[in-house]
Formats: sequence, C-alpha cells, structure tokens
Amino acid sequence: MIGLTNYAGVMESLMNSAEEKQPSSPLTNSWAKKQESSKSQKPNGVGGFVLVHAGAGYHSESKAKEYKHVCKRACQRAVDQLKAGALAVEAVAAALVELEDSPFTNAGMGSNLNLSGEIECDASIMDGKSLHFGAVGALSGIRNPVMVANRLLSEAQKGKLSAGRIPPCFLVGRGAHDWAVSHGIPPCPSDKMATKFSLSAYKRNKRKMELAEKMDTGHNQTKKRRQSSENENGSGCLDTVGAVVVDLEGNVAAAVSSGGLAMKHPGRVGQAAHYGCGCWAENACNMNSYSTAVSTSGCGEHLIRTMLARECSAAMQSEDAHQALLEAMQNKFISSPFLASEDRVLGGVIVLRCCRCVEAQPSQNFQGILVEFLWSHTTESMCVGYMSAQDSKAKTHISRLPPGTVPGQSLAIEGGVCRLMDLLLKITIHAGYCNLSLKPLRRRTGGQGKNIYILMECNLQ
Amino acid sequence: MIGLTNYAGVMESLMNSAEEKQPSSPLTNSWAKKQESSKSQKPNGVGGFVLVHAGAGYHSESKAKEYKHVCKRACQRAVDQLKAGALAVEAVAAALVELEDSPFTNAGMGSNLNLSGEIECDASIMDGKSLHFGAVGALSGIRNPVMVANRLLSEAQKGKLSAGRIPPCFLVGRGAHDWAVSHGIPPCPSDKMATKFSLSAYKRNKRKMELAEKMDTGHNQTKKRRQSSENENGSGCLDTVGAVVVDLEGNVAAAVSSGGLAMKHPGRVGQAAHYGCGCWAENACNMNSYSTAVSTSGCGEHLIRTMLARECSAAMQSEDAHQALLEAMQNKFISSPFLASEDRVLGGVIVLRCCRCVEAQPSQNFQGILVEFLWSHTTESMCVGYMSAQDSKAKTHISRLPPGTVPGQSLAIEGGVCRLMDLLLKITIHAGYCNLSLKPLRRRTGGQGKNIYILMECNLQ
Repeated sequence: MIGLTNYAGVMESLMNSAEEKQPSSPLTNSWAKKQESSKSQKPNGVGGFVLVHAGAGYHSESKAKEYKHVCKRACQRAVDQLKAGALAVEAVAAALVELEDSPFTNAGMGSNLNLSGEIECDASIMDGKSLHFGAVGALSGIRNPVMVANRLLSEAQKGKLSAGRIPPCFLVGRGAHDWAVSHGIPPCPSDKMATKFSLSAYKRNKRKMELAEKMDTGHNQTKKRRQSSENENGSGCLDTVGAVVVDLEGNVAAAVSSGGLAMKHPGRVGQAAHYGCGCWAENACNMNSYSTAVSTSGCGEHLIRTMLARECSAAMQSEDAHQALLEAMQNKFISSPFLASEDRVLGGVIVLRCCRCVEAQPSQNFQGILVEFLWSHTTESMCVGYMSAQDSKAKTHISRLPPGTVPGQSLAIEGGVCRLMDLLLKITIHAGYCNLSLKPLRRRTGGQGKNIYILMECNLQ
Repeated sequence: MIGLTNYAGVMESLMNSAEEKQPSSPLTNSWAKKQESSKSQKPNGVGGFVLVHAGAGYHSESKAKEYKHVCKRACQRAVDQLKAGALAVEAVAAALVELEDSPFTNAGMGSNLNLSGEIECDASIMDGKSLHFGAVGALSGIRNPVMVANRLLSEAQKGKLSAGRIPPCFLVGRGAHDWAVSHGIPPCPSDKMATKFSLSAYKRNKRKMELAEKMDTGHNQTKKRRQSSENENGSGCLDTVGAVVVDLEGNVAAAVSSGGLAMKHPGRVGQAAHYGCGCWAENACNMNSYSTAVSTSGCGEHLIRTMLARECSAAMQSEDAHQALLEAMQNKFISSPFLASEDRVLGGVIVLRCCRCVEAQPSQNFQGILVEFLWSHTTESMCVGYMSAQDSKAKTHISRLPPGTVPGQSLAIEGGVCRLMDLLLKITIHAGYCNLSLKPLRRRTGGQGKNIYILMECNLQ
C-alpha cells in the first residue's frame, strides 16, 4: 500500500497561481509579431505544446546530457511542425522520428537487440481528433517505425480498400515491412540500425544469460526462475520513447516507439504496439471535459496487462489532475490486481490534459487552452522534455526516484501547467508551483524561471 | 440511434422464474451418482458451463448443420475437461482446439487466406483467476494457434526467465512459430491448413479485388474507396471463433481464435490477438461482484478500436445483465465515437456472468453458481452453442438479424440463465424465460425443454 495524503485543492491552487500574469519575454513578442503577420495564411492559429520522454528505466549520469539533448531536439521538431501549421498528430510523429534517430534511445536506431541479435521494433500513434490508431509490431529493417504506424493511421482515415476490404490498423513482422516499403517508406539494412553500444550490450547480456542458465540446473526450475527474478531489478534497458502534443486547435495526439526489452524472444511485441497500452489520445467531447494524451514507457508486459495509457487517460477526467494520476499509478499500476504476482512493477507515463477556457484578464479576454502536463514513473529514472511553440528552446529533466526507494514499488510524480493563447498574438506560459510531496526531495525551476514543476513521491508502507 | 425501452426488472423476474425447481432427469442422477463416488478424488467438485461461438458474420443455411455440429463438439470437449476436474482456462482452450480444427470455421484449419494466399492466424486466451493473458498474431504453420497462446499464458505464470527476463505474453509471426515449436507444439505445413473451400474463396476474392481495382482509376481514388465501401456489407467472412467457460470453483476464462479477414495484408493482426479486444475474463473480486468472461467476433479493426471485450466485461457489473449488454453494444460499439466514420459496425460477443449464491430451497440449502449467458451481434448471423457439465449434449443456435434490418446498424441479443450446484451431488439447470423483445421474433426451447433463451432485438430509428 502506498501512503496517501489528501491533496484535494492542490491543483486548484496551482490553477489560481497560474493565473498570475507573467511578463512576456522579448522573444515572445518578436515571434508573436511574426505570427500576426502570417495570420491571413493560418486563420486557425498555429502553436501548441509538446511533452516528450526518452524512457522510463535507468539513465546514467554519464549519458544524461545525451538523453536531454535528444529530448530537446524532439521538442524542437514537434514545435517546428506546429509553427508550420501542422496538426498535433503530425507534430507528435515528427518528435518521435527524432527520438528514434538517436543512437542513445531504445527505439529505431540503436534499439535493443533480441535473443537472435536482431532489432525488432514496436511503435504506435493515436490521433485524438479522429480517434484513429496505427501500430506496427516486431518490425525490422525500417529506420523509423513510427512513420509506418502514422502511415497506417492516415491510410485508414481514407476509408475502405478495394472490394470493401477494411484497412489494417496493426501490422507486424515481414508483412509490416513490405507494406511500409510499398507505401514509399525506404528500407534500412538492419545492421545499420545497430550501434556499437547496442552490440556490446547484446554481448554482455548474452554472457549474463548463459551464466544464469548454467546456474539453473534442471531440478526445481520454477523455483529457480522465481529466485532469479528477485536478484534482478529488470530496469536496465526499458527506455522506450514517446511524446504527447496539443495543437492550438485543441487537438491532442500521442505516440510511442520501442526496441523492446533486451534479449526478448523474436516476435515478442510490447506495449508500444498495443492499443490502449503504449499511447492514448482523445479530444474533449460530450462525454469528456478534457482532451487527454498519454504515452507510456517501461516493462511492456506490465504496461499491456494494466492497459496503462488508457487507464491514465480515463483517470484524467477527474477534477484534480495530479491526484488522479497518483491514484491511477497506485491503484491501476503498482497495486493492480493484474500484476498481483509481480514483485516490482516498472513503468512510467507522460500525460497532457487540456481544456479550452475563457477568462476575464486585466488587459484582455483570455481565450485559450489550459495545458496541464505531468510525468510519473516507478522506474529508477525518467527523462522528459517539454516546450511550447512560444519557447525558444525546450526544457529537459531527468526525474529520479530518491536514494533508498525501491524501483517498482515507489513512484514519483512531477508536472506543470501552461496556457496557450489562441489569438495568434502571443503565447504566454504562466507557471504555477505546488509542492505535493510529504517530504520534498528536490525543487527545480525551469530554464527561464517560468516553469516550475510539481514534485511528489510516495513510499510504500 | 437505437430505440430503447426500459427493461429494468426483467432480469429480476428471470432470476425469480429460475428459482422454480425443475425435475432432474434420470441422466442427471446417474452422472451425479458417478461423481459422488469419485468425490474423494475431487474434493472441490467438478463441473461448470461453456458457451462457444463459431463466429459473428454470415452463416448460410446450407452450412448451418456443420456450424452447429462444431459448436456441439467444442462444448463437449470443454465439458469433458471440466468433468475431469480441469480449471476453466484448460476447458476453454480445449473448446477452441475443436473450433480451430473444423474446416468450416475461420480459425486454424480452413482459415481465410491473406493477400499472398497464406494463412496467418491470431488467437488469445485469458484466465480470470490469475488474470494472465497469452496471445499470438500473424502465426503461420501451427494447426492450433490457441495452444500457443495458452502455453504463453502458462509459461508467464511460472515467473521470470533466466537473467531476470520477463516472459512474453504476445508473440507474432516467425518468432511465435519458433517459440511454439521449441515448446513442443508441432508445426503443421501451411498447405495442409488450407481447405478446398478456403482456396476457392481466395480465388474468388482475388478476382473480385482485381475487378474492383480496375474500376478504381488513379483519379479521385479516395472518393472511389469510400464508394466501394458502400457497395459491400463486408460481413462475408468474419467467422472468428471463441468460447467462455466457468468452472465449479467459479473461475472464468475466455478465448478467441481467427484466421482474420479474407484478403488481409500479410502481417495484419486483428482483435483476436489484441488484449481487451478479442477476449476478457475476470473472476469476481473486491471491486467486482460478478465474474465475467467475454469473447468477440466480427471485424477486427472495429473490435480493436472499441476494445469491445473489455467494455462488455466492465458493463456486466451492472445489475441487469441484458440491459448492460444492450447498452454496451449500442453505446460502446454501434454508436461508439471511435467508429464515427464507419457506416456499418460489424461484430458480435458471447458473454458469461456468474456469481456465487446461497439460497434457502424447499429441500436443501442451495449453494452454487448462478450463470447468466448472453450473445449479441450486429452481423447478419452468429452461431453459438452452450452446455453445462450436467447436460448430455450441447444446445446450438444460429441467431440471425430479422429480415429487413441492416447488418452493422441493428443488433440482436439473446441469452439464458442456469444454476450450477456446488455439492457434487447433482447439477441442475433451472431455466428462466423472459421475452425482452418489443416484437418477438422467435421463441425457442432447448433440447430438453430446460433452457429457454431470451430474445431481444432493437431496430435503428
């Protein structure tokens, strides 16, 4: 059981503090003027917000710079798309391509190798506007699996195929590869996707596995299998990547991509290709007050069996976003009856929640989108980046469980809030701060002192 | 929109009528005595109930006998397992093997061929007791895909693999095939899985497709794609198979298996391999009063995007099972915002809902399991069979939408109720009858006049 305190009203105070107007930076106005001049071309406005993750798992201090750097670039790619008038789904795909292209992440280039020494990737994308979904599983020989998932999504939106056939939303293996190539996505030789790091990790893992199997004699193998699990934290290489985006029309989208667990069996498909498990995006509608977008990372089997992306999305319709995410991570993940036999439940999520709001401001009527963005993880660390179309550069952060806590049994939650103006005049980030932790561990401020995220940690009793 | 009437209290009256005690048949007593004599070997009791489907799609009158026959055999296989003391998950797998082995169903032997003329199967199984899940997708060269899914489930229950690796719950393609063979499941040459019927259907579909593609010139292809969809009902070959089982300990299990859509792209994975979409099973727990098990059939993409198995399972925690299923099929399927762009939403479900109950009876204290079983479909027809361990043979039925209704826009619901005694002395089925239809279409009685199912049909306004 996780020790909980009543955090009711915390988000309310955050919202209130968010309403304190911040002075706009010179850059804000400069970019705003540029946008104003192009108003006639983009009558619906351009802009938005992106939150990315380079995985929940373990991020060494020595590579922290690289992880942050790729998150920054991914945010920039999404923002470039948003500024060019792209919808959220296009922007989220662009962010994923950048994350996949990094040799440091376990997605696309540099993915974990499977038992046979091959790379097989999973990826999926969901558009909150159309509610369409595209996914690929165990895909080899394609540099950017998310591009195939995205193409499946867009092809499905065109309607049925010849002779009334229903277009696929999920393709795997060789069939997925051939479909991608026939749709103009170039193949990439598998050996070019492996990196020096992924190859040396494979050799190391192989030796470790052989050693472990030598120790497992034929007798009482089940018992030994259980024992071996207790000696592992299993969180070494879980760094799936993902992103969530909201555009200035209020559309949300989410995507996720992964090379899967190291030394997985060939053909194994993880949560990144699984509907409701790897990513989720739903625009606000009659039934839902908020638009929500979620992307997950961690141990695929845990994330599949708890359907964590969809559960978090559903939870975010509650009033208090942080409380809702805390409860979802506690009740639907760490303490989920679906994972009752697991000693450590490993995963992380990034979440966006947005709503349109109109408020009287001292100077003008504010009409825009209030964006709450959060991340939470039970793994040792999680690397995130975030950026609005207004920012000159992304902010990045590696969130870590505090020393002494046990990965898979504790969780951390952090997040922030920003408001996107819908007037094409300017986008101003107003940041609220609230410490939700019983025992605050860290307080950090964003690069320009505008965004301050919320930190919370709950220890198991 | 579907026209709805308030059916509150219908299930209550059904429950009450179910309490009218039926005389036991001679066979009941004979088998009961046999079981009584073996009581010492099986202290927890043996028995249970199975409901199977040979697909929601279109079942021609000319093949009705064959479809019913395979359902009967599948029920018998599950009941044989239950009588031998097997748990629900083993019984449901046994039923699926029989359904897959039939050349008339679109699963295992005789599956639909894909675009390349190959057979690629999807299957999954879920155990309501452990909440473990196993699935295979796009699997070729294995006669019984459900056996691989079941083996994945049971291997995962043993805990972690060597070096702390997490066992997979979902394998696809060649990797799934190799895993199966390495776990003692024999390969089967693909050409032996095709039948005369599936090969001729492939040739027919191929010609139809080529003709349709000739008509689709390069100009305005999107428009033509949409038009072509209007000329098809798309429900020709959707006969996925599945089963749901409850054993006498009250454990539920569900499974599903499919050859997928005819002429699908190689690598396409449908709902039968998708967690939450093809099947779902959850024993009663602190949060859920009822044990529920669901298996779906129909258009995989529709069933994936609506996550229909899990939605129906969640809905069944409401008081009135029929009303809950009706509303789930209406709101979460036909009118689902996830399928807003679809003109026809094609699928079907079979559902079990069980609870333990203790009631004072005139002759003894009844302590057993009340089982409500239902099926519902939007396709032209759905073939089902059901049997308790007490019955001498299964009852079968092809449910059809009435003439004049439009598949994909109307739905039919039927079902029944039975009680399983937990005393090892006898299992008596008490059947209730209630006509839920505004305009009753058919009234049927089961083979021995014991089971009478409920019939309901709602037309679109």
